[in-house]
Amino acid sequence: MRQPIDRLLNPMSIAVVGASTDPSKRGHQAIETLQTSGFDGSIYPVNPNADEIRGLEVYPSIADAPESIDLALIVVPGPVVPSVLEECAEIDVGGAVVVAVGFGETDDEGEALEEEIVSIARENDVRLVGPNTSGLINIDTGANLIGADGVPEGDLGLLCQSGNLAIALFTEAAGREGVGFSHYVGVGNEADLQFDEYLPFFERAEETEAIVCYVEGFSDGRAFLERARETSRETPIVVCKSGRSAVGKRSASSHTGSLAGDAAIADAVFRQAGVISVDRSDELLAVADALASQPPVDGDNVAVLADGGGHATLAADALAERGLSVPRLTEQTRHRLETVLPDAASVENPVDVAGGTDDDPSVFTDCAAALVEDPNVDAVLFSGLFGGYGERFTDDLEPVERAAAQEIAAAAAATDTPLVVQSAYESTDPETHTVLRENDVPVYESLDIAVTCLSALSEYGTHRRLADEKSSFELDRSHTDVPAGARALEERASDGTLSEYEAKRLLDEYGASVTPFELAEDAAEAERVAAEFDGPVAMKVVSADMVHKTEADAVALDVTDEAARSTYERLCENARAYEPDASIDGVLVSPMRTDGVEVIVGATRDEQFGPVVMFGLGGVFVEVLEDVAFRGAPLTEHDARTMLEEIDAQEILDGARGNPAIDRDALVDVLLAVSQLVADHPEIAEIDLNPVLAGEGDAEILDASIVLDAESDPTDETDDPDQPMYEPDTVPDGGADE
Amino acid sequence: MRQPIDRLLNPMSIAVVGASTDPSKRGHQAIETLQTSGFDGSIYPVNPNADEIRGLEVYPSIADAPESIDLALIVVPGPVVPSVLEECAEIDVGGAVVVAVGFGETDDEGEALEEEIVSIARENDVRLVGPNTSGLINIDTGANLIGADGVPEGDLGLLCQSGNLAIALFTEAAGREGVGFSHYVGVGNEADLQFDEYLPFFERAEETEAIVCYVEGFSDGRAFLERARETSRETPIVVCKSGRSAVGKRSASSHTGSLAGDAAIADAVFRQAGVISVDRSDELLAVADALASQPPVDGDNVAVLADGGGHATLAADALAERGLSVPRLTEQTRHRLETVLPDAASVENPVDVAGGTDDDPSVFTDCAAALVEDPNVDAVLFSGLFGGYGERFTDDLEPVERAAAQEIAAAAAATDTPLVVQSAYESTDPETHTVLRENDVPVYESLDIAVTCLSALSEYGTHRRLADEKSSFELDRSHTDVPAGARALEERASDGTLSEYEAKRLLDEYGASVTPFELAEDAAEAERVAAEFDGPVAMKVVSADMVHKTEADAVALDVTDEAARSTYERLCENARAYEPDASIDGVLVSPMRTDGVEVIVGATRDEQFGPVVMFGLGGVFVEVLEDVAFRGAPLTEHDARTMLEEIDAQEILDGARGNPAIDRDALVDVLLAVSQLVADHPEIAEIDLNPVLAGEGDAEILDASIVLDAESDPTDETDDPDQPMYEPDTVPDGGADE
Repeated sequence: MRQPIDRLLNPMSIAVVGASTDPSKRGHQAIETLQTSGFDGSIYPVNPNADEIRGLEVYPSIADAPESIDLALIVVPGPVVPSVLEECAEIDVGGAVVVAVGFGETDDEGEALEEEIVSIARENDVRLVGPNTSGLINIDTGANLIGADGVPEGDLGLLCQSGNLAIALFTEAAGREGVGFSHYVGVGNEADLQFDEYLPFFERAEETEAIVCYVEGFSDGRAFLERARETSRETPIVVCKSGRSAVGKRSASSHTGSLAGDAAIADAVFRQAGVISVDRSDELLAVADALASQPPVDGDNVAVLADGGGHATLAADALAERGLSVPRLTEQTRHRLETVLPDAASVENPVDVAGGTDDDPSVFTDCAAALVEDPNVDAVLFSGLFGGYGERFTDDLEPVERAAAQEIAAAAAATDTPLVVQSAYESTDPETHTVLRENDVPVYESLDIAVTCLSALSEYGTHRRLADEKSSFELDRSHTDVPAGARALEERASDGTLSEYEAKRLLDEYGASVTPFELAEDAAEAERVAAEFDGPVAMKVVSADMVHKTEADAVALDVTDEAARSTYERLCENARAYEPDASIDGVLVSPMRTDGVEVIVGATRDEQFGPVVMFGLGGVFVEVLEDVAFRGAPLTEHDARTMLEEIDAQEILDGARGNPAIDRDALVDVLLAVSQLVADHPEIAEIDLNPVLAGEGDAEILDASIVLDAESDPTDETDDPDQPMYEPDTVPDGGADE
Repeated sequence: MRQPIDRLLNPMSIAVVGASTDPSKRGHQAIETLQTSGFDGSIYPVNPNADEIRGLEVYPSIADAPESIDLALIVVPGPVVPSVLEECAEIDVGGAVVVAVGFGETDDEGEALEEEIVSIARENDVRLVGPNTSGLINIDTGANLIGADGVPEGDLGLLCQSGNLAIALFTEAAGREGVGFSHYVGVGNEADLQFDEYLPFFERAEETEAIVCYVEGFSDGRAFLERARETSRETPIVVCKSGRSAVGKRSASSHTGSLAGDAAIADAVFRQAGVISVDRSDELLAVADALASQPPVDGDNVAVLADGGGHATLAADALAERGLSVPRLTEQTRHRLETVLPDAASVENPVDVAGGTDDDPSVFTDCAAALVEDPNVDAVLFSGLFGGYGERFTDDLEPVERAAAQEIAAAAAATDTPLVVQSAYESTDPETHTVLRENDVPVYESLDIAVTCLSALSEYGTHRRLADEKSSFELDRSHTDVPAGARALEERASDGTLSEYEAKRLLDEYGASVTPFELAEDAAEAERVAAEFDGPVAMKVVSADMVHKTEADAVALDVTDEAARSTYERLCENARAYEPDASIDGVLVSPMRTDGVEVIVGATRDEQFGPVVMFGLGGVFVEVLEDVAFRGAPLTEHDARTMLEEIDAQEILDGARGNPAIDRDALVDVLLAVSQLVADHPEIAEIDLNPVLAGEGDAEILDASIVLDAESDPTDETDDPDQPMYEPDTVPDGGADE
């Protein structure tokens, strides 16, 4: 028997439950669409009160259908769905597509109804698409459940959380030669089947070359990352995730009932997983098509071939804007260009043919051949008017251009150097562009979109090269070498914040470098401890009940050995005056540190993507400028290192303003320790190491705060709303979270 | 007699000098294009060796033409151009269009040739377009000099520094219903006529509703700003300026020979002048069309009407991304929406009709009426599928949609609330969209471009409201109240850097608040001066020959009165050791200052736009993050105040991290003084006040450096390459620079 997801997305038999004799009803139109789309399997209308619909025999119940049903399309109203699913459960359906609205996206009542259908489905192994979905399509077999005709066939698999957006993408694709879809799934509320579960199907599907996702919010973003990382090794994935702004977030959650999350975190974890993220909806289809039709670009060096200085300059700007390079060409390439182009031409990159192709567009062929063969060049961009010479000058040039297109595409294919063409004449649909597209050379009207596509190809190529060095996103809690302090943490009741002493002990056990510290429980011990350290010390009251130690005057800096005793008394007095009920464990004593760059390392638990590590420079860099880097935990060393490279102000790490460069390895070690800690412990809601002092040869945590999740009980897995309950075998024995 | 620019852009008679009997030559094709474009004036071919070309009598010399010539189209090769211009000079031509290449854009020889033709032109009052131009077009009269046919007629005036880019824009416009051009000018090398000089013509031209410029580099950017500020009060100007990146800059200068300049400065001064700057070439035409067809948006509050949650969410994100707001609707509006939309709809902004228009798109009319009448709403954006209901559902909906379009446009027009429509069906060209466009409602396929257009309308609306408060860009050096120190500066030979003492005196005279300072010329005086100030002092050796005072150990901080005498001796010794030949004026003594936020105020002389003032926060904010604001000098108070609001880290000025807010008025005063200083003195190349300490109640300049332009001699006007030499009456009597 095939897997449920294969039976759903490639059904041989479809039952339409709620079939209708009334042509204005969805239960009638659904059958009509299947018939007009040429569905090559069986259609079984189900309705206890009809005999025949559109020439097909009608069955009173789905159980009466004469063969096994791969897909039950349920078009009855929401409140009737549970009873229909009960019927489906009695026979071996592959799965059901629930079209009705009025579930989790509405109110408490709807949420209860959604829980009910999910529970029926899981108890009976019936997989669900939806509810609140427009349906799904398999273009090749004609299994079209959405009632839209004219969906162009192609190599893109589309997963979409908005039916109208899917219509918009179908319409856009219909206007673009060579762009189309192999499948479409409206994931709806993701009540059962979620984004991640469709990915392996598309990876297997021969018709699908790239996967396109429009997402408002994931039910389980962590599972998506884990699966996407595997799928994207073979099949590129492009995501447009909306709900980036505050008002967009509000709009998204009222629409699908899912959380939209933080856009900066989403961008970071997508990149980490090799998912290409597109933030303009008008670039989604173009980028997906480029990834589907072109080899990944192995580098970021782009040669520009422009027929005019204006296009050459604009192309260079657009490439630079997106972080791509315009490298020097080899002398050989420049020489080859010189032999075919006029004196006025620029044979430096960006190359400007300067009229050298006006009489004879076949000159483009020689130029393209020279560029794709240049070892300095990873991809080539044509920009300007190619394909329009016939229209612009004389008709005789049209066949010349067309032949050139064929040869140019062949030259690119021979070297495996991706070639992308931007032409103002794209909108006039010249034959030359058809030839290019037939030979897998994409053509764009917009220069900016063409360059965005090159940037996506380069990002994907870079990821493919580095994928093995990046996080697996797997939260494996089964390993046994959890440190003792950590075990103590697990035993501790979840009651808010750890004291700084507890937090530092835990970090120390995880191998993070913390400034030496000792807990003094009385004034005499404070004096003794202070004397053990070289130089003056910092002293802070230790209390898990006090967050604002500075405001309470419960912190003293630059304390000498001699003053340690009296300082101890004073700090404790201040603390008790500030918060009489606080339980005080003593005073933490550490040597003073001042040399180095203040950085912040943190961890948080994203509502969609689970544990995430954060890095930034201290003070205003994080607080005002939000110049931070995120990665999903657990980090690899590569992940940690690239976080340091990602912040805008990273020049400071290299020793701007006359300071020495900091020790990146030491900082990487801190990031890895924090990553392991937050990955191991679902009961940790937040870690904030501020500051970490990064120096020439080390990095030391000066202050640490660890907040526990009051709602999470590490002994009880079911408390976690993100817990994937339907696949119990994927939950590690150790239990809990994500 | 009409002005030369009117005769050139709206010619009644055109002579083609270099006319040819050979149909493959430009001198033949030019005549053919004029004839086929229906040019309604006279055409006079000029060629000593022909009698008749395309049915027209040929004249041996332009002087032989039987009537006065408005425009001489010169298609002879570069080296022949000077002699042709001499002939033009003998009769009263309005001006000449020089097509040939091989001038300033090539080499020294070309530059000399360009200088020669400019000098002939100016001596004889013959205005030049080009050289290195594709020509110009007046669509209405058929005066088409560029040989491209099918240029769509419309209301945009196009000034373009790249002929091929003009072709691309013509082609793009031809594919967009309702978008076209009134005129085109290829400005070429701007050897004589420059960008700014065309603006008043377009302002007068009734056919032109917006001006579109593609610029690589301005010959005189300051003149453009000054003129654009006036023109943009009536006629919007959109600029796409390339050469933003380093490699783009190189490409631009090899193409037109002009300097491309700094992109951040260009963006800032364009905004100051009310010029809308577009950095994606694919948005240029769309933005220009929106500005030409729509009233400016008076605010930034946009209501979204989406047919689907996906479009609602994406639209909200796209608006937020571009700084626009999605305001709450009034209760009345929400009530009106509730009465026509289904329960599932969201009547909060962004509004999602949630299927409420599927059966009856006329529901859009009521929604649109409610939104355009809402007092919280400055503009309305439709996003989704409007115009596609007929195609998507049943044909009967098409007339309903079409009628709705008419009513929607009328509702928007009645309230003067701009309305922009984004529809996935734009590419299918439905009648409904034609109705919208005929009623001045623009329709876009791309959501991002639609929102960029709204953002441009809002920016233009804001500028129109504030234009009077902004800089005139006029550098009026005729006023007589130049301070004494400044007069001394003018008398001073231009020999590099002023000493800190001289710089601070000059700033003081210009009313900038400088920390109190005195020059001590010997150790005893240092002691006396230090005693006069409260508390410890800072001491620095004063020498115009020493730039690196700190490295020379020629600076001492926190010096007490008692130590002042010995410190004086020590600093002078250190300075002499470091740079034995430096002439030392003494030691500058100032009271120590520490409280406040360190900011940097600077001024520079941009190669295109002249004197520019800069503001940023001290240290890494400027050096690493480049978080700075620029404005063209002279500043108004409004300009100065908005600079403070523009930096990313401005939260720090408001007192982030527990600090008090700084006194913005005091900082504005410093900016205004620096602005006046740099505007008054062309001999100042650079001012660097770093730091200025901005406190709760004041702002004081702690350190000042003023660099003089070694090449500029204030007594000699002609030295300045940016000097507009051809319009001597615009140069103020006081003389010199910009």
